[in-house]
Amino acid sequence: MARTKQLPQDISNTGYTANAGMQRIMNRDGSLNVQRKGLNWWQRNSIYHTMISLSPGRFMLVVFLFYTSTNLLFASIYTLLGIDKLQGIDPVSGFGEKFMQAFFFSSQTLTTVGYGHISPKGMAANIVASLESFIGIMAFAIVTGLFFARFARPRAFLRFSDNLIMSPFKESAAFMLRVISAKNISLTDVQAEVTTAFEVEEHGKKSTRYFQLPLQFSRINSLALSWTVVHIIDDKSPFYGLSLEEIKKSNLEVMINVRAFDEHYSNTVQQRISYKGDEILYGARFLPAFAPSEDGRSTILKVQKLNHHEKLEETHVAAILEKIKLDQGKSVEAKA
Amino acid sequence: MARTKQLPQDISNTGYTANAGMQRIMNRDGSLNVQRKGLNWWQRNSIYHTMISLSPGRFMLVVFLFYTSTNLLFASIYTLLGIDKLQGIDPVSGFGEKFMQAFFFSSQTLTTVGYGHISPKGMAANIVASLESFIGIMAFAIVTGLFFARFARPRAFLRFSDNLIMSPFKESAAFMLRVISAKNISLTDVQAEVTTAFEVEEHGKKSTRYFQLPLQFSRINSLALSWTVVHIIDDKSPFYGLSLEEIKKSNLEVMINVRAFDEHYSNTVQQRISYKGDEILYGARFLPAFAPSEDGRSTILKVQKLNHHEKLEETHVAAILEKIKLDQGKSVEAKA
Amino acid sequence: MARTKQLPQDISNTGYTANAGMQRIMNRDGSLNVQRKGLNWWQRNSIYHTMISLSPGRFMLVVFLFYTSTNLLFASIYTLLGIDKLQGIDPVSGFGEKFMQAFFFSSQTLTTVGYGHISPKGMAANIVASLESFIGIMAFAIVTGLFFARFARPRAFLRFSDNLIMSPFKESAAFMLRVISAKNISLTDVQAEVTTAFEVEEHGKKSTRYFQLPLQFSRINSLALSWTVVHIIDDKSPFYGLSLEEIKKSNLEVMINVRAFDEHYSNTVQQRISYKGDEILYGARFLPAFAPSEDGRSTILKVQKLNHHEKLEETHVAAILEKIKLDQGKSVEAKA
Amino acid sequence: MARTKQLPQDISNTGYTANAGMQRIMNRDGSLNVQRKGLNWWQRNSIYHTMISLSPGRFMLVVFLFYTSTNLLFASIYTLLGIDKLQGIDPVSGFGEKFMQAFFFSSQTLTTVGYGHISPKGMAANIVASLESFIGIMAFAIVTGLFFARFARPRAFLRFSDNLIMSPFKESAAFMLRVISAKNISLTDVQAEVTTAFEVEEHGKKSTRYFQLPLQFSRINSLALSWTVVHIIDDKSPFYGLSLEEIKKSNLEVMINVRAFDEHYSNTVQQRISYKGDEILYGARFLPAFAPSEDGRSTILKVQKLNHHEKLEETHVAAILEKIKLDQGKSVEAKA
Repeated sequence: MARTKQLPQDISNTGYTANAGMQRIMNRDGSLNVQRKGLNWWQRNSIYHTMISLSPGRFMLVVFLFYTSTNLLFASIYTLLGIDKLQGIDPVSGFGEKFMQAFFFSSQTLTTVGYGHISPKGMAANIVASLESFIGIMAFAIVTGLFFARFARPRAFLRFSDNLIMSPFKESAAFMLRVISAKNISLTDVQAEVTTAFEVEEHGKKSTRYFQLPLQFSRINSLALSWTVVHIIDDKSPFYGLSLEEIKKSNLEVMINVRAFDEHYSNTVQQRISYKGDEILYGARFLPAFAPSEDGRSTILKVQKLNHHEKLEETHVAAILEKIKLDQGKSVEAKA
Repeated sequence: MARTKQLPQDISNTGYTANAGMQRIMNRDGSLNVQRKGLNWWQRNSIYHTMISLSPGRFMLVVFLFYTSTNLLFASIYTLLGIDKLQGIDPVSGFGEKFMQAFFFSSQTLTTVGYGHISPKGMAANIVASLESFIGIMAFAIVTGLFFARFARPRAFLRFSDNLIMSPFKESAAFMLRVISAKNISLTDVQAEVTTAFEVEEHGKKSTRYFQLPLQFSRINSLALSWTVVHIIDDKSPFYGLSLEEIKKSNLEVMINVRAFDEHYSNTVQQRISYKGDEILYGARFLPAFAPSEDGRSTILKVQKLNHHEKLEETHVAAILEKIKLDQGKSVEAKA
Repeated sequence: MARTKQLPQDISNTGYTANAGMQRIMNRDGSLNVQRKGLNWWQRNSIYHTMISLSPGRFMLVVFLFYTSTNLLFASIYTLLGIDKLQGIDPVSGFGEKFMQAFFFSSQTLTTVGYGHISPKGMAANIVASLESFIGIMAFAIVTGLFFARFARPRAFLRFSDNLIMSPFKESAAFMLRVISAKNISLTDVQAEVTTAFEVEEHGKKSTRYFQLPLQFSRINSLALSWTVVHIIDDKSPFYGLSLEEIKKSNLEVMINVRAFDEHYSNTVQQRISYKGDEILYGARFLPAFAPSEDGRSTILKVQKLNHHEKLEETHVAAILEKIKLDQGKSVEAKA
Repeated sequence: MARTKQLPQDISNTGYTANAGMQRIMNRDGSLNVQRKGLNWWQRNSIYHTMISLSPGRFMLVVFLFYTSTNLLFASIYTLLGIDKLQGIDPVSGFGEKFMQAFFFSSQTLTTVGYGHISPKGMAANIVASLESFIGIMAFAIVTGLFFARFARPRAFLRFSDNLIMSPFKESAAFMLRVISAKNISLTDVQAEVTTAFEVEEHGKKSTRYFQLPLQFSRINSLALSWTVVHIIDDKSPFYGLSLEEIKKSNLEVMINVRAFDEHYSNTVQQRISYKGDEILYGARFLPAFAPSEDGRSTILKVQKLNHHEKLEETHVAAILEKIKLDQGKSVEAKA
């Protein structure tokens, strides 16, 4: 009870729901755990956003499938019009062979390679071919645009530590995560914002409350090396006065949003992650991930050591939290 | 009279006119209800903006019309030069047939498919063909650029409730609208700004005055679910002390501007809407549009329930407003 | 003398020089009146910026000249290799005719139209043709990029009044200019910043001093209609206490910078103008440039009335300024 | 000792390491002197960023190598399938000649020039050709995107003086550097941020401390001419009370970050530089780099005079610093 009084101001305008019991607010990859119902696929999705978000392999596959199916479609049309309307075609007999030749002519038209050893003859075939080459360059224009958009899409390429860990920190305990820039990108003016959601039971009813976690440093000039984002459990923390057991049982979720200025794009990039349940390690400490180079002339960032940590006794952390709780009790008594 | 004293500071620098009687300041879709006169189409319109704003179907149509008309133009030129300058052409007699063959050759040149079963012969035809293929790749370059610009144009894809509704809210009444993100786009740092315009009669002359409406929350972290934007009618509201009749007669218009950060584009997007006259429902209350999924593992946003509301008696709202007016009168008296 | 005391804080960090006597700091179109010496053209210019800034006609011309000269170059190479290396060519005798055929073959290769009635024969011609088609698609890629960049370049399309005018305003006088958005572009959050430069004589030495001019409104929500930017000559103005003669002799330059948010691009656009000497009208008043439409359903912005003003007697303005000067003298005396 | 008390607040959240002895934090060109280990090339580098950062020559080379190697690959495939599958080929005997013809056919397919005097025959060759032309247009789409991205990449094109210099300034000494905009680009709202790192010995242990250097002007309206960025050594400076010898021995590094608004791109651009060791001149003064033009109608910026300076006696500067140290001692005594 003493505890509830201590809860700092929560954020009621997160845009999330306060219904308790939800498994996860944000997925591990930073996307929201929300499903949209009542709209069909086209209304619900921006094709552009979908094409931009596909992995490179899948994107190439989609484009290739479009290429193949468009060729199949036009090959069918040419076959229907009569294969003799494609002059220069090899004199073949089987339907399959005829269709394949139509397919190849189609691909030559769609890509505008147009060798010309096969060419359309007569009104109908010429109109279809003229249309197909038009579709070809339009499709190509769209794909070029998509390729560029995929390339140019500002991304942070951050790597977060696998776990959020809790360790003793100065006179108290702290939640910590580590983040590095995985690629040859210069990120400056890097800012982290950490939000937590946990269940609070009031008047016998559980609800999810949201808190902004104050950070030791919420901004660094440059993400040159690894950055350990630290939330200290002090009297400004919503965890202040909770025991380790209580924290673990609160169905805790910690969401991190990192924004930075990418000098290449001259643009702001952003990446999110969320930690929940067994992704949080209680009692562990990160070990350094960088060191001077042997010749002392530069610093080496050992990316594989991003998750490098040592385990501590959970009881050790529990004891610290217990002590904080005790101190708090005293200070409340003192005030009274 | 007591009322006019209570009017909060209006905004005189909206960029809109203070002429009363105008039907609408902003159209429903957020565009301004202003016509530009005294410039021809080219001076008045940015072709680029026009091409970007066209619906996908209309855009494709414009491009297809350009393709067809350019082919018609060049087919005419080739026909004028003499159809015999196109070697490899089928020996045809009718003008129509000749023209069509010239048309097909033109399309093969413009799309650079260039089968070659027809090819230009002699100086003039070669020069024209050389120019046409140049125009073809230029036109294609432009269309590619436009496609990309259309794709990459940052858009919010917000859906607003059909109506602005007025309902009892806490101890007072409030104007409310609801907004959702219709597509698979992650919008963070979402901000709403609501401006109202209504007619005020002073010294017997009507003029339109503009007010910024204070909101319960003007910013949410993430537009994950539905957001109900709420303006409470309290002593900071320009509606404070007005009866329902007075509000209805004031030729009210409410304009909403929502800005958000789109994580895909790393860009700020913006969308507007305006409500006027019968788009405002007096006496209604929104009903929830989201619920936990059956397995409790995620939240479901029911987009079709965006407008889901229950009707209330208008007299109920009128009574609340009357009571506010009364309270206000008392407080003014108390001060005096 | 009394006057100099009144000069508000000038801005010493404009980035401009304080050398008096310079004809103009900023050109009328907003570009800086500075020449860079000591670098060659390539070091001094960004080709990209140059290509983007060219007028549409000049840009097309540059591209067409590149197309023609590249064809001339390759036609020369094919002619040098021997015209018989281009099989399918018409049997021609004159050098001119041979060269032209090589030119046409080159254009068919560069645009990748490749009819094929002419084709390269032998090693050398094939290598050159292979290289030319590669150059063709590269050049086309560059041109596509430039077209897009030209299209997508955020521009404000503002129109400023031809003159900066000075008119009586409320109890004082004011400098005014008028600005409209000429195209179908929605500009919101429009901000103006006005800087003035004039010569001050101190200790017998003239120097140029820079001042920010405070504005009646420096920001409007939306540039829906015309916006009159107004600087009132009050005690915060650097012109306070100057006579009309003194202002006219001070080699005055007024530079305006307007920034706005373009909703189409979701980007900030900016445009500048500078007024100097006879572009400033002393004694004039702008007349309205917009009116309700006949049916009262919308507002009409009459763009051709952007400069619509009535002339006033200069002596009238001079008298106002003289009165201000007098008041100022009194207030200084009163303090003493 | 008196000195250490005077050290202003250092910045602990730079994102750099505090390990002393490192040769350089930032390289001269503004990139960070950090190596990433433990990731392979693909994980460590963004291909996109790499392609964007290549010099124009190297980029063209990479694209040309891709073109050539793809042609070699497909030429090999066609040769393996049997050169007779390419109809229209010259009847040649040697392997080399056959391969070259396959190579030329490949290049005609990849660039979609497709003359057609050579064309694929039979299933296998047609499939490969169909695939190659698809790869061709895809590759071209990617290259177009990269070209545009390279063009459109916002860059500042700043030139910094070769040296950071220290000179007497007003009653004290100052660090200065000079910066100009080298190209025809209009940069406004230019801001400089200067960070310094030097070694401090505390309790016998050396560590690197970081300080933000206060500037005389940290922002100018427009980078029209040259801008001399000045840090004055006063009581807010971390160098306050240090002798010249101490400064020189502190393994000093000065990092400058300049941000500006590029009006062409309507975007923020940024450029950095770092000075260390012998790039710092103690005892020198910049000489003017611009002058009015002969006709007095504009200002000339002499870019080649960016580094124009005169040498001063180092002892002169040392004396000034010594005097400051003395003054400081006195003021400390006075307080005591």
